[in-house]
Amino acid sequence: MDDKAFAQITQSSYAALQTVREVKLKSKVPGKTYLAFEKNGNFSRAINADLWSPDELNRFPNFQEALTKRDFLDFEATDITKLLYTQAASVFAYIDLWKRSQKTPGTYFEILIHYLFAKILGVTPRKHITISTFDGRESKLPTDLVFDLGQGKSKFHVPVKTSTRERIIQVWAHQRVIDGVHGTGAIKGVPVMFAETKTDSNNHEVIEICLPLQWQLYQRYISQMTRIYYFDLPDAYAELPHAPTPIQVKPIGDFFSEFSSL
Amino acid sequence: MDDKAFAQITQSSYAALQTVREVKLKSKVPGKTYLAFEKNGNFSRAINADLWSPDELNRFPNFQEALTKRDFLDFEATDITKLLYTQAASVFAYIDLWKRSQKTPGTYFEILIHYLFAKILGVTPRKHITISTFDGRESKLPTDLVFDLGQGKSKFHVPVKTSTRERIIQVWAHQRVIDGVHGTGAIKGVPVMFAETKTDSNNHEVIEICLPLQWQLYQRYISQMTRIYYFDLPDAYAELPHAPTPIQVKPIGDFFSEFSSL
Repeated sequence: MDDKAFAQITQSSYAALQTVREVKLKSKVPGKTYLAFEKNGNFSRAINADLWSPDELNRFPNFQEALTKRDFLDFEATDITKLLYTQAASVFAYIDLWKRSQKTPGTYFEILIHYLFAKILGVTPRKHITISTFDGRESKLPTDLVFDLGQGKSKFHVPVKTSTRERIIQVWAHQRVIDGVHGTGAIKGVPVMFAETKTDSNNHEVIEICLPLQWQLYQRYISQMTRIYYFDLPDAYAELPHAPTPIQVKPIGDFFSEFSSL
Repeated sequence: MDDKAFAQITQSSYAALQTVREVKLKSKVPGKTYLAFEKNGNFSRAINADLWSPDELNRFPNFQEALTKRDFLDFEATDITKLLYTQAASVFAYIDLWKRSQKTPGTYFEILIHYLFAKILGVTPRKHITISTFDGRESKLPTDLVFDLGQGKSKFHVPVKTSTRERIIQVWAHQRVIDGVHGTGAIKGVPVMFAETKTDSNNHEVIEICLPLQWQLYQRYISQMTRIYYFDLPDAYAELPHAPTPIQVKPIGDFFSEFSSL
């Protein structure tokens, strides 16, 4: 998808949501409130009300210009997080209510991260790493996005998930294989996640499912992630930069001021 | 479940299957043929026709005696594989056709492996490993079955899956954490799997999904499995003991003659 397609899907998803009812959900997550859209009794996924900022969507064309110039001086990191959260949440909610059977939010999220990272880093990602064996054969390990900025420059392994739960261990394990093949630090692990909310389908209560102690073990014993970015960062993970085994988990907006130093 | 319960579920599952139709499936797996049971248009999972041996089920009480004595001189390894395959496949097919919504074959398979290994090894498994951190706190890593035979004796990490696909990387990753915490070789990785078949729901064609090259990478770069046992061993994995990075993948029947030397 190109700039125009993203501008269009943003506009049309948000416009569609304006035709249905916005409802408040019951939050079981301390300090967070959630809304959802409802159409004929069906609910969209939970949307974090503090990050949901339709006004920011007006700045989406300006943000796309900034992406092209790789210059974000006009944007605060928190504004970028809100803008991108609202963009993705609009499309997800639209898919939830109108296209549930045909498209998956996970596929859209990967396309969005592909777009953002390719614009910023200036290269097209691959979706595997090539592994040469001692006896001269090559094999391929399928991965999420791998960005190679060129000889002597940074390389990033960017797994993309709308939410993780216990499947997250795959991310550290893939990184371990990549470290083994190419050397530790050669290709940096930078996963991007949307949120960790789960909504009870009966009473519409929203919880967050987080496993910070297990993440500590994975970072300590399997491999090391350079950054982990969230569109809606859970508090339990926001504390991990200060944990006994620190993990740099941050809101997605922070990426745009620090990408050149990663 | 105790000896009696296993004898009973074996008998009643097989008896139930005798009341429905046995059909031949179309096999896309070279050298293997498959059958299934059909009830009112619903099909059970695919069953490997060469391993399916209802006659062997008559020996199930004798096998349970052998388990209790830990003496398998009356059984060939291939007979044990057929006996256990037929036992598990009967229960799975019964669940598929009569209890699909209430019970899962995965849960039954874990109970069966729990039973077999606990009888053989003489200890009750735990379902987590405890991890002490440098600052004195303890955390728990949930795992599949962990058998500890006592001080100075063998310890086994036994993940159990009816089939694996790409989720298998979790098994090597958990083993890596265990190796990191307790030292490499302290707790041996011995996963047990049922089969890797997948049946097309439209035309009932059976395929096997295997990723032997990826297993090689996991064994080389993440951690090392001591054994991997299958009830229905795919040919692609049967070759792995002779691969550049050998992995000892074997039929489940072999376990009963080699468990004391693992």
